[in-house]
Amino acid sequence: MTEVGESLTEFQAAAGDWEGKRVLIAGGLGFIGSNLAENLVKRSARVTLVDCLQPEYGGNEFNIASVRGQVVVHLADLRDREIVNDVVREQDFLFNLAGQTAHLDSMRKPQTDLEMNCRAQLSLLEACRENNPAIKIVFASTRQIYGVPQYVPVDEKHPLAPVDINGVNKLAGENYHLVYSRAYGMQVSILRLTNTYGPRMRVKDERQTFLGIWLRQLLEGTPIRIFGDGSQRRDFNFVGDVVDALLRCAQDPMSRGRIFNLGSSEVVNLRELAELLVELNGGGDIEIVEFPADRKAIDIGSYYSDYRLITEILGWQPRVKLIDGLRETLEFYRQNQARYWE
Amino acid sequence: MTEVGESLTEFQAAAGDWEGKRVLIAGGLGFIGSNLAENLVKRSARVTLVDCLQPEYGGNEFNIASVRGQVVVHLADLRDREIVNDVVREQDFLFNLAGQTAHLDSMRKPQTDLEMNCRAQLSLLEACRENNPAIKIVFASTRQIYGVPQYVPVDEKHPLAPVDINGVNKLAGENYHLVYSRAYGMQVSILRLTNTYGPRMRVKDERQTFLGIWLRQLLEGTPIRIFGDGSQRRDFNFVGDVVDALLRCAQDPMSRGRIFNLGSSEVVNLRELAELLVELNGGGDIEIVEFPADRKAIDIGSYYSDYRLITEILGWQPRVKLIDGLRETLEFYRQNQARYWE
Repeated sequence: MTEVGESLTEFQAAAGDWEGKRVLIAGGLGFIGSNLAENLVKRSARVTLVDCLQPEYGGNEFNIASVRGQVVVHLADLRDREIVNDVVREQDFLFNLAGQTAHLDSMRKPQTDLEMNCRAQLSLLEACRENNPAIKIVFASTRQIYGVPQYVPVDEKHPLAPVDINGVNKLAGENYHLVYSRAYGMQVSILRLTNTYGPRMRVKDERQTFLGIWLRQLLEGTPIRIFGDGSQRRDFNFVGDVVDALLRCAQDPMSRGRIFNLGSSEVVNLRELAELLVELNGGGDIEIVEFPADRKAIDIGSYYSDYRLITEILGWQPRVKLIDGLRETLEFYRQNQARYWE
Repeated sequence: MTEVGESLTEFQAAAGDWEGKRVLIAGGLGFIGSNLAENLVKRSARVTLVDCLQPEYGGNEFNIASVRGQVVVHLADLRDREIVNDVVREQDFLFNLAGQTAHLDSMRKPQTDLEMNCRAQLSLLEACRENNPAIKIVFASTRQIYGVPQYVPVDEKHPLAPVDINGVNKLAGENYHLVYSRAYGMQVSILRLTNTYGPRMRVKDERQTFLGIWLRQLLEGTPIRIFGDGSQRRDFNFVGDVVDALLRCAQDPMSRGRIFNLGSSEVVNLRELAELLVELNGGGDIEIVEFPADRKAIDIGSYYSDYRLITEILGWQPRVKLIDGLRETLEFYRQNQARYWE
């Protein structure tokens, strides 16, 4: 892994020629979408973003402050076929990063999760099939679809047994893409993301990954709250590495119709992660609290990925060390917290 | 296997005591639902049916002619929470047989399939969770979720890779049930049905299984049309055997949280099946025609089930021989065709 400092978010990998390419990013004002957009603008791609900016989700106008004026933005819901039909036309690539990602929300409002992770996905795929079937699509899926690991590290052949509605619907989203690939010959590839972190992630509340709210708690001087005993192990990818994987996936014909895990060989337990954050922050408290029952019911325990397949086929591997990525991320929120929770 | 003649549809298995039990059947006017209803009425259960009677689906008023007056019928859509909340209260059992089953329709109208196989399922599960979390649920899933078999016979551990939208959404439906079982402790079990046939199946057009339209073609004196070369192998269950499996699944605590394949050891290819039908009918023509492209794109080739698990755990096995079941079925439609397609 490389040591990277200030320029971490500008991290550029050998991920093909993007000059003049027309790229649509669904969920483009979100965490990963906006990092990808910035990267593609630097590569001189012609970038269009579509995002519904639902307040509970990851979209944030500030996320694209650095590329405002260099990208086309559509604030629209993917379920609006009239708009989506129009937006997908004449695009070369579609990065499909749109969705609802909060596990607990999906249990409380399963029909809303269905709307965002299934109906919206079908709407987007139908729009592509009817208006631009040659578009190359990369879909961001999630390790959540594996459910409680039967073994670790989890490879792509691991049984799929999601433990929450979000996992069920994300799996359906993945399967829709595979059906459109198989039945209509569309060019689709799928990345199953593990915990992704970095600048522009949603840190406002506990909706998305625990790491987000920990960053906020740390910077606000309140204790980081760990549920359970903190022994659960996880792997993390810095967003720049995920952007690199997305770009490779889109460009490499070897990715067509395939599913790849992302992951990291730096596996830590939650207590170690919290301690690392406190160290990087130069102070802070950690509080071990009982697992809330509703979270415990959908918890997956320890998880980390076997990502050898994408290394073998696309040459991808994570380059950013956890300590460097976290330092960069903390620094970002120290400077920009007003944009994310105040 | 037993030889069964006239009384085949009244086939009764050792499937527990149902006297006075309150049973709700979703999709109760459909093919399997109505056979189940008739069986349960004979067992002195208190039976309630809910069905939306969508004309393209399997519901048919005539299906319940024999039990009219002995069952409560709600003509309602499962998405109508107000009605469904009411209907699930005070039931002991729910047989969840509601859904859209036409593969090609699911490709043409994916959002409609989503409504019927996902939104309606979530609505029903939420209604149970909120109003009757102790209800025992059996969900009818389908072999379609396996996709193209990687090996045959297909057991429950076979990877799930549905090839059409219907398969994706039925898989989501199955997963919703498992999530509600795991997260909320609800009592759920799942049967993955293979080709089910028998009296009251929908034979009007090609929407559901090919066997339905073959029966109609035969009785109308037009040729049975086989797509491809007729070499695809399949297994078939007579509806009485499926009813037996449903009853055992509902009654046996060993079925909780589990998934079982149904299937048969009588595996035939489509040409053999067509020839058997012609023989039973005392005449008829078979026509081999090219596979229509839209059907070919979602075809799964040869499939038959490994159903040893349900034999081992619940003691179920199919008892009705294909030749007997088909004879009974042909006779039923000879007598009742006016109710099914005229």
